Amino acid sequence: MNHAAFPLPPLLIEPVVRAALAEDLGRAGDVTAALIPAETRFSGVLAARRDGRVAGLDCARLAFEALDPSARFEAQAGDGDDAARGVALARIEGSARAVLSAERTALNLMGRLCGVATLTRAYVRAVEGTGARITDTRKTTPGLRALEKYAVRCGGGINHRFGLDDAILIKDNHVAACGGVAEALSRAREVAGHLTPIEVEVDTLAQLEAALPYRPQVVMLDNFGLEDLRRAVAMAAGQVVLEASGGVSLETVRAIAETGVDVISVGALTHSAPVLDIGLDAA
Amino acid sequence: MNHAAFPLPPLLIEPVVRAALAEDLGRAGDVTAALIPAETRFSGVLAARRDGRVAGLDCARLAFEALDPSARFEAQAGDGDDAARGVALARIEGSARAVLSAERTALNLMGRLCGVATLTRAYVRAVEGTGARITDTRKTTPGLRALEKYAVRCGGGINHRFGLDDAILIKDNHVAACGGVAEALSRAREVAGHLTPIEVEVDTLAQLEAALPYRPQVVMLDNFGLEDLRRAVAMAAGQVVLEASGGVSLETVRAIAETGVDVISVGALTHSAPVLDIGLDAA
Amino acid sequence: MNHAAFPLPPLLIEPVVRAALAEDLGRAGDVTAALIPAETRFSGVLAARRDGRVAGLDCARLAFEALDPSARFEAQAGDGDDAARGVALARIEGSARAVLSAERTALNLMGRLCGVATLTRAYVRAVEGTGARITDTRKTTPGLRALEKYAVRCGGGINHRFGLDDAILIKDNHVAACGGVAEALSRAREVAGHLTPIEVEVDTLAQLEAALPYRPQVVMLDNFGLEDLRRAVAMAAGQVVLEASGGVSLETVRAIAETGVDVISVGALTHSAPVLDIGLDAA
Amino acid sequence: MNHAAFPLPPLLIEPVVRAALAEDLGRAGDVTAALIPAETRFSGVLAARRDGRVAGLDCARLAFEALDPSARFEAQAGDGDDAARGVALARIEGSARAVLSAERTALNLMGRLCGVATLTRAYVRAVEGTGARITDTRKTTPGLRALEKYAVRCGGGINHRFGLDDAILIKDNHVAACGGVAEALSRAREVAGHLTPIEVEVDTLAQLEAALPYRPQVVMLDNFGLEDLRRAVAMAAGQVVLEASGGVSLETVRAIAETGVDVISVGALTHSAPVLDIGLDAA
Amino acid sequence: MNHAAFPLPPLLIEPVVRAALAEDLGRAGDVTAALIPAETRFSGVLAARRDGRVAGLDCARLAFEALDPSARFEAQAGDGDDAARGVALARIEGSARAVLSAERTALNLMGRLCGVATLTRAYVRAVEGTGARITDTRKTTPGLRALEKYAVRCGGGINHRFGLDDAILIKDNHVAACGGVAEALSRAREVAGHLTPIEVEVDTLAQLEAALPYRPQVVMLDNFGLEDLRRAVAMAAGQVVLEASGGVSLETVRAIAETGVDVISVGALTHSAPVLDIGLDAA
Amino acid sequence: MNHAAFPLPPLLIEPVVRAALAEDLGRAGDVTAALIPAETRFSGVLAARRDGRVAGLDCARLAFEALDPSARFEAQAGDGDDAARGVALARIEGSARAVLSAERTALNLMGRLCGVATLTRAYVRAVEGTGARITDTRKTTPGLRALEKYAVRCGGGINHRFGLDDAILIKDNHVAACGGVAEALSRAREVAGHLTPIEVEVDTLAQLEAALPYRPQVVMLDNFGLEDLRRAVAMAAGQVVLEASGGVSLETVRAIAETGVDVISVGALTHSAPVLDIGLDAA
Repeated sequence: MNHAAFPLPPLLIEPVVRAALAEDLGRAGDVTAALIPAETRFSGVLAARRDGRVAGLDCARLAFEALDPSARFEAQAGDGDDAARGVALARIEGSARAVLSAERTALNLMGRLCGVATLTRAYVRAVEGTGARITDTRKTTPGLRALEKYAVRCGGGINHRFGLDDAILIKDNHVAACGGVAEALSRAREVAGHLTPIEVEVDTLAQLEAALPYRPQVVMLDNFGLEDLRRAVAMAAGQVVLEASGGVSLETVRAIAETGVDVISVGALTHSAPVLDIGLDAA
Repeated sequence: MNHAAFPLPPLLIEPVVRAALAEDLGRAGDVTAALIPAETRFSGVLAARRDGRVAGLDCARLAFEALDPSARFEAQAGDGDDAARGVALARIEGSARAVLSAERTALNLMGRLCGVATLTRAYVRAVEGTGARITDTRKTTPGLRALEKYAVRCGGGINHRFGLDDAILIKDNHVAACGGVAEALSRAREVAGHLTPIEVEVDTLAQLEAALPYRPQVVMLDNFGLEDLRRAVAMAAGQVVLEASGGVSLETVRAIAETGVDVISVGALTHSAPVLDIGLDAA
Repeated sequence: MNHAAFPLPPLLIEPVVRAALAEDLGRAGDVTAALIPAETRFSGVLAARRDGRVAGLDCARLAFEALDPSARFEAQAGDGDDAARGVALARIEGSARAVLSAERTALNLMGRLCGVATLTRAYVRAVEGTGARITDTRKTTPGLRALEKYAVRCGGGINHRFGLDDAILIKDNHVAACGGVAEALSRAREVAGHLTPIEVEVDTLAQLEAALPYRPQVVMLDNFGLEDLRRAVAMAAGQVVLEASGGVSLETVRAIAETGVDVISVGALTHSAPVLDIGLDAA
Repeated sequence: MNHAAFPLPPLLIEPVVRAALAEDLGRAGDVTAALIPAETRFSGVLAARRDGRVAGLDCARLAFEALDPSARFEAQAGDGDDAARGVALARIEGSARAVLSAERTALNLMGRLCGVATLTRAYVRAVEGTGARITDTRKTTPGLRALEKYAVRCGGGINHRFGLDDAILIKDNHVAACGGVAEALSRAREVAGHLTPIEVEVDTLAQLEAALPYRPQVVMLDNFGLEDLRRAVAMAAGQVVLEASGGVSLETVRAIAETGVDVISVGALTHSAPVLDIGLDAA
Repeated sequence: MNHAAFPLPPLLIEPVVRAALAEDLGRAGDVTAALIPAETRFSGVLAARRDGRVAGLDCARLAFEALDPSARFEAQAGDGDDAARGVALARIEGSARAVLSAERTALNLMGRLCGVATLTRAYVRAVEGTGARITDTRKTTPGLRALEKYAVRCGGGINHRFGLDDAILIKDNHVAACGGVAEALSRAREVAGHLTPIEVEVDTLAQLEAALPYRPQVVMLDNFGLEDLRRAVAMAAGQVVLEASGGVSLETVRAIAETGVDVISVGALTHSAPVLDIGLDAA
Repeated sequence: MNHAAFPLPPLLIEPVVRAALAEDLGRAGDVTAALIPAETRFSGVLAARRDGRVAGLDCARLAFEALDPSARFEAQAGDGDDAARGVALARIEGSARAVLSAERTALNLMGRLCGVATLTRAYVRAVEGTGARITDTRKTTPGLRALEKYAVRCGGGINHRFGLDDAILIKDNHVAACGGVAEALSRAREVAGHLTPIEVEVDTLAQLEAALPYRPQVVMLDNFGLEDLRRAVAMAAGQVVLEASGGVSLETVRAIAETGVDVISVGALTHSAPVLDIGLDAA
C-alpha cells in the first residue's frame, strides 16, 4: 500500500522551499561559502539518525536544485517508507557551495515532515487491527499545513479538514449561537451545498441523540470517557462516522480505538511532533 | 529584566499572520460562520492550560484585528512574563464570526511561540547561577525563524545566527575544503568585513589550539565531553567566547554549564518544543 | 432568507481589489485626474441599468476606500437582494480624483458579480417548486473563483467543488484508468479521508447501477436524456444525491428539474454570464 | 496578415497561469489524481466544439508544463487563426495525473480568450470594407486585462487604453470640473508629456466643435445617432481620429461604420463575450 | 504652477516603502532600538543640507506611519517646491524607536527623489525661455521608475515613455530589421492602435526626410550637431515633435534648446543624479 | 585576488531582475518588438563606454534568459575585473525581439552596479598602501541593497551593516536616550547575543575614552578632524576597530587613511555613484 496516496505537486511545494531558502540566505547570501573554492564538488548521503517514517524527499530535492539546478539528487527511498537509522534516504551530488548552503533548509523541512510521519505511524500502529483510523487537526504550523497533512498521510493517517472552508464543523459556540444541536444542524443543511460535509461536535450522549436524525457525515465525540464512547457507538449504529477527540495519547489511543469509534483525531501529530534528526554526511 | 529585549515590529509579524489566516480561510472562508448571526458578539479570555512563558501576544492580536478591525484585544500579560495555568493572558471582544474564524490561527501561532519560550525558560533555569547562556540554532520552522528566535529571547535565551548571511560559521566541511582550521580562519579574516563575526567549529582540543591565535569571536566545541570542555575553558582563558554544542538535554545542560563555557546551543528549543496549550473561553 | 449565506471576509476580497486597481493605475496612476482640482469632492450613486440581482457591494466599497480611505460608501441594498433598474445600490462621497480613478475597477468587479448572480437567479426561478437546486462548476474566471462562487450563492444557487482538492470527482478518464466505475469507487474509498466527499460521473444507467452500492455522496448523470434521468431517479431511490449535468440551458432546465434530480450544474453561470451594466452617476 | 501583432511574452503570462493553477489545486492538490497510477501517460487533442478564432495557446501550454515540465505540447494552429469546429488546435502528451490536473485551468483560460477573439472577429467582419476599426475598452476582467486585450488583437481588433496611465481621456466629469471642453483640453495640453495621447469624450456636435482647435489625438462621440455621426465626420474633416462609442451591437455596428468614423469601441468584447467551448479528448 | 501635475496615489507608493523597510529591518528588526525605552518619544525636523527641489514627502510619511501608525507627520512644504538649505520640509513626532528605525528608509527614498527633482530643475532652468522642454528616459532605477518619473515632474520636466508598452519607439535595430525608416513607420502604423504614440529615432537628415510623410508623433534626433538640429527644425516645420537626444549636459543643453527643438531627453536625470542630502534632527 | 569574495546566489538576484523586466514590459509588453520578424536573431556585445570595474554580469545574463530561455550569454570578463573602454564584457546571441526587449533592463542594472564598483575602486586605490579599508553604508537604493553591497565588494571595498538587524550601532540619539556612551554600551552588552557585533558612534575623544573599556568591536569616529583621528588611533592602541566617517571625498580620503584608522565609510559609494555607461552593439 502506498501511504502517500495524494502526492503534493511540486508547484505547491516550491514556493515554501524557496521562501525557506530566502529566509536563510538573508540579504547577503551564505557568507561562509566564500571559503570553499567555487569549483569544489560535494557528494553526500542523507540519512536519519534514528528509525522513522520518510516524508518530504521532494522538499530536500527542490532545496538543493534551487541553489544548483544541475545538482543530482537521487532518492534511495520513497515518502511513506520506513527508514532504518543510518540507511541512505537520498544521495546528493553538486556544487559544494550550493549543497552546503541548502543543507539546513533541506534538513529543516524534511526533518519536520519525517517527524510528523513518524509520530503518526506510532499512533497508527497502536490501533492496528481495531478498524479505527488516525486523523489530524487544524493545529498545524502556520504556512506548512499542506505539507504537514501530507506527512500525516505518509505516516498512515487520514486528513481532517484542510481549513475553515472545506467542511462545516459545528462546535460548542456555534451550537450556543443557534440554540441547540438540532437547530444548528438544521441551519447547516440549509446553507450547505450538496458536496459540503457536515460535522458536529457533541459533549454528551443526549447531544448525540439530538444530532443523529440530521445525518451529519461525522459526529465528533469530545472528551468522552471510554464507557460513553462505547454507548455512542451503539447508539449511532453505523449511521454516521464517529470521531473521538480530546485527551488522546499513545498510552490511551488503543483503548479508545477498541470502543469501536471510526476515527480518532490527534492534535499532537502536527503541533508537537519532535523532528526526526536527519543528517547529511559526505560520501 | 525585560526578557523580550528586541521586540519585533508589527510590520514583520503581520505578513505571517495574514498568510496563516489565508491558509486557514482557503477560498470560501469560514463556512461554519454562517450559522452565527452576523450581529452576534463574542467576548472571551485567552489562557494557558498549563504553566509556561508568554510569547506572541501580538500574533494573536493581529489575527483577531485582521478579521475584525474594530475588535478589542486587551493584553493582561506581556511577552516574557511567566504565565500560570488558567490565568488570563488577554481578553478579546468582537464580532463572533470574526473572533471564532481567527481563533485557531491566533492559538496556533501563540501556542507555538509560548512553547518555544517555555522550553527555553527550562534550559535557562537549569543553568542559573553558572554564568552560561542558552542560545538557539538555525533549526527553526521554515517561515517562522524571526518569530521563533524572538520567543527564545522571551524565554531568557540569546540568539545565534539569524541566517547564513550574518556571521561566518566555519564547519567541518569548510575546514576540509580549506585544508585546516588555521587556513580556514586566515581565509575568513581576509574575506570578512569589519563587522562580520567569525565562529569556528572544532572537534578536538588540538583544533581549538590552532584556532585561538586567529581570535575568532566564538569557538564552537562540538560534542566535547565534560572533561574536554573544562580543558577547553582553561586553554581559551577568556580570549574567545566558547560555545558548547551537541547532545544537550535538560538532564545534561547543567553539568555542561558548570565546565565554564560561555554559551550552550540547543537545537531542540525551536525544532522540538511542544506547543503550550492555550485556549479561548467565552467570558 | 439570506441568499448570501457564506459572506466572504474582506481579507480575501481585498487582494483582488487592490490587484485590479494596480492593473488599472499602471505605473503612472490616473493621468487624467490631474485635470480635477485636488480638493474637488464627488458624490454619486451606483445603480443598475437593468433589473438584476446584487452581488459584490464590498468589492466596490473596498475599491473606493483603497484610493480614498476617508471616502463614505453607504450601501442602499445588500448582496442577494433584487435590484430594480435605476434604483440606488450605494452612495459614494469622497475625493473626486479618487472616486473617479476607482470607478472602473469598482464597476468591473461588481458588474461581473451581479451578472453571475442575475443569471443564477434566472435558473433558480426556472426550477422553482421542483425541489431541484442549481449549482456551479469549476469553469470560473481565473483569479475570481471565490468571488464568482459567492455570486452564485447571492443568486440563490449552491456551490459545487471549489477546486481539485475539496472533493474526489471521478470522471471518465479516472474510470478508464481504474478499469471501471466499481474499481474507481473502491479505490476512492480507500484513499479518502472521513470528510472527503466522493462524486462519480456516469454516462449510462448501467454505470449508475455499478456505482450505487459504494454510496458516493453524489452521482453526476452526464448528458442523460429526460427519460434516462427519470429512470436514474427511480433507481437511486434517494440513496445518493443525483446531479444532472451537460446541455443545460434556460429553455431545458425546468424539464430536467421535473425529472426529480436533486441538483443541476450549469457551467454558463460563471463562464458566460453577461455583466450587469452598472453606472455611477453624480448625485 | 498576423492578427496577433503584439505577442505577450511568457514572462507576463506565466504568473497568471500559475496563480490560476494554485487557485484550482488549493491546499491539498488534486485529490482525484490518486486514482490514476503515477506512471500512466495521457495523450489528447484540444479542439473547439464550435467555430471560432484562436487565442491563448501559450496559456494552455504553460499550464500543462507547469505541472509536468516534460509534457509535450504541440500547437496545431496559431493565435489569430480561424478554428473550425473539431479541428485540433494542439496535441498534448504527458503524465496523466498532471495533464488531467491542469486541464480545467488550461481550458478556462483558453476558452475565455478564444471567446473574446471570436466575438471581436464577428464585429470586425461586420464592418469589413468600411475602413472603420474595432477597439476594446477598460471593461475587462480584473487580473486578465493584458490577456483579454491580446485576444482582441487576435480577433482583428485594436486596443484602446490599457489603463488610467497611458492616455488622458477626458470624460464628462472632467469637463464639468474644468468648466468646459476647451478648458479641459487646454489644461490637458499643459500637463501632458510629448508622448501622452489625449482623447476627449463629447456628447454633442457643439462640444466637438469646441474640441477640434485643440487637436486631441482622438475625439470620442458618445451615444451619437447616425445622422450626428455623419455630421461629426464632416466637421472633423480628418483632423482628428473619431471614435464612436455607446450602444454598439452586432446589429448596429455596420451602420455606424458606414458613417465614416475611424474607430468603434465595444465594451462587450471583453465584458460579455461567451467562452468558446474547447475540449480535451484522449487521442 | 503645480510642478507635480500627476500625483502618485499612495496605493502605488506604499508597496515600495514597505519593501524598503523590510529590506532594512531584515529578520530581527532594529536591534539597537532596544536601547531606547519603549515609551520614549521623538520629535524632529526633516531638512535638506543644501538647496534643492522637493519630491517624495509621501514616501517619508508612509515610512514613519508604517512603523508607528499614530506618528504625526506634518509636511512644511509640498512636492515641487524649492527648498532652501536648512528650512524644515516636515516635522515628525512619534515613538522614538519607530521614528529612528524608519529614518534611513525615509531619507534614502526622499533624498533620491529630491536629487532627481533637483537635477531636473537645473536642466529646466538652463533652457528657460527657449520653449524647449526637458524629458527623462527609461534609464531609471529598477523598481523605482514611477517614483523617479514623478520626481522628474516635480523638477519641472515631462515624462517620456514609462515602459516598452506605452509607445512604439523605433530604434536603429528596428529600422535595420524592417529595411528602412519608411518601411518601419509603415509597419508601425499597421500594428498600432489609434491611441498608440509612434516615435522614430533618426541619425541623419535624410532619415528625417523619409520619416516626415508618415507623421509620427515624435522624431528623435540622435546625436545631431547643432547645425543639423537647426536644419531638422526647419525641415519638420512643426509637423512633428522633435526630440534631441544624446550627449546632453548642463553645459550643452541651452545651445541645443536654442536650435528650436521641442524636447530634450536627458538620461542623467535618473541614472546619475546625486542624492540631495536630507537630515532628521531632533527638534 | 577575487574581488567578489561573496557571490550572490541567482536565487536572490532573479526576483530583482524579473521585477525590473515586468516594470519595463508593463501590461502590453514591448509594442515595438512587433516590427521585428519573430524569427530574426540578434547577436551583440556588451561593452563599457569608459574604463571601469565590472559588477553585475549575472543580472544581465538573467535578464536576457528570462525573455529567451535559449539565449546564449557568454561572459568575457568576471565581476571584480577591471574593464577597459570598448572591450567586450559579454556576448549575447538570441531572439532579436527578446534581446532588444531585455536590453534596457540588463543595462540599467549592470550600469548601476558597475558604477558603484568603479567608484569604490577609486576610493580603494586612493588609500592603497595605508592599510585602511573602504566600506559602505545603509544609504543604498531601496530594493537593491544586496546587489549594491555586492558591487562594493567587486570594487574592493568591504561591507558595513546590511540592515538594522545584523549589528548594534549606537548613534547619538541612542546615547542620549541611555544617558551616556558608557550606559549605552553597558545596556548593549546586556541585550546582545554572543554573535551580535556592537559599534558605537562617538563625536569626541572623551566619548572614545568612555567607550574603550566596553570593548565594542568598532568605534565610529564621526566627523573627526585629522588631528583628532590621529589621537584616537593612539588612544585606541589596537583594542578596537576604528572607523572614520563623515565628509569623506576622493580628495580627502588618503589623508584620513594615513591617520591610521582601520576603516573609512563612504555613503557616496551607493547613493551618488554615476552609472557606468554600458552599451549593447550588434556584432
